[in-house]
Amino acid sequence: MNVFRVIRPPDIFTLLNLVFGFMAILFAGRATGGSSTQYALVFILLAAMADGLDGLVARKMGGSPLGANLDSLADLVSFGLAPPFLAISAFHLPPHIWPAAILFLICGALRLARFNIVSAKSDQHFEGLPIPAAGLALSASVLLGKPQLTIMLMLFLALLMTSSIPYPKIRDLRLMTLFSGVYILVAAVLLWRHDTNYILYAALLLAGLILLYMISPVVITRLRKGR
Amino acid sequence: MNVFRVIRPPDIFTLLNLVFGFMAILFAGRATGGSSTQYALVFILLAAMADGLDGLVARKMGGSPLGANLDSLADLVSFGLAPPFLAISAFHLPPHIWPAAILFLICGALRLARFNIVSAKSDQHFEGLPIPAAGLALSASVLLGKPQLTIMLMLFLALLMTSSIPYPKIRDLRLMTLFSGVYILVAAVLLWRHDTNYILYAALLLAGLILLYMISPVVITRLRKGR
Repeated sequence: MNVFRVIRPPDIFTLLNLVFGFMAILFAGRATGGSSTQYALVFILLAAMADGLDGLVARKMGGSPLGANLDSLADLVSFGLAPPFLAISAFHLPPHIWPAAILFLICGALRLARFNIVSAKSDQHFEGLPIPAAGLALSASVLLGKPQLTIMLMLFLALLMTSSIPYPKIRDLRLMTLFSGVYILVAAVLLWRHDTNYILYAALLLAGLILLYMISPVVITRLRKGR
Repeated sequence: MNVFRVIRPPDIFTLLNLVFGFMAILFAGRATGGSSTQYALVFILLAAMADGLDGLVARKMGGSPLGANLDSLADLVSFGLAPPFLAISAFHLPPHIWPAAILFLICGALRLARFNIVSAKSDQHFEGLPIPAAGLALSASVLLGKPQLTIMLMLFLALLMTSSIPYPKIRDLRLMTLFSGVYILVAAVLLWRHDTNYILYAALLLAGLILLYMISPVVITRLRKGR
């Protein structure tokens, strides 16, 4: 089977997601807390945008046979591997902390493998925190410059990913536009502003947005009870 | 669904494969041509052994529902991402060479995604060079210290992976033992010998073994014609 012939438009975005994830790892490898950390985060944001567009295009134009498999592969690289690798590189975390990063990676892989076997179940909800949200939250935390916080977050996000908490699927175009707008704003700040305060605000904005999504199951349950 | 409850023995080896791949990336990130390059290759060899055991255990004890998905994820990290990342780090390859590494990664991902949709077709052959062989060949080439060779190899291996050349599945226990024996020998030399000559011999032995596998389709076709 000629694999290049079965590639469809959504797969191009999936491959872009993978390439951005690899670029993030290349920049993270040079990270010493300076601007390469920022560039790595910019690539993780680009990967998240490519991942969103891939889903959107697949729903409009139809998916490809390779779609589901390629998607998991790209997501693991961009959101399961690049963020903990960035954390280790940026903070020079010593080997006795690596197990936290390994746990994050393993739980990310298990989350993706589970998704592929139960994804048909619900059209409304994901089971457990989606890996792009976990990866973005972890990467944003690196910019806050607090290694302890990032390490705690690795463990917490690993648990949330493998939990059975129902997370809403964001397919509302207004909400998707809001998310993309914030990603582009944060990426622009990271690329053109080298002022520590601006970078801190950008990281907080991104972390805040992801935090809102992380607590959304609690809010939804409360709203339902209130009805 | 509690994902930890569906994990079966072969999945443990798959997760080990993933962890060894991540360790290879962590060591490659520090690689400057010195012993961290050797350690990175040792982890890629360990990942290959875990990958082999995973298949063996799955055939003996039965696979798990997560198996196929987890397997691709681990293989992409250990053999699709770690080897080109090691090449870039060890040789300090400049950004205009990165597209070769990106092509290797993309072709590896396409090879894995195709395998998951056509794997039921043949029990005797793989379609295209399997990604562990490509990853091992690329990593071994890094130890030879010739950046040009490694770059050419990236492009050539990328093509072989996405080709439709039938590669034999190695399931003969004697052959598997031979491969494992060579892996262990090479890993031992890399860990305990820091003499350049020994390292070169070890890299050549590994490269030779993989090369034999790479040309095996030609040999098999010739033998069949001779019959």
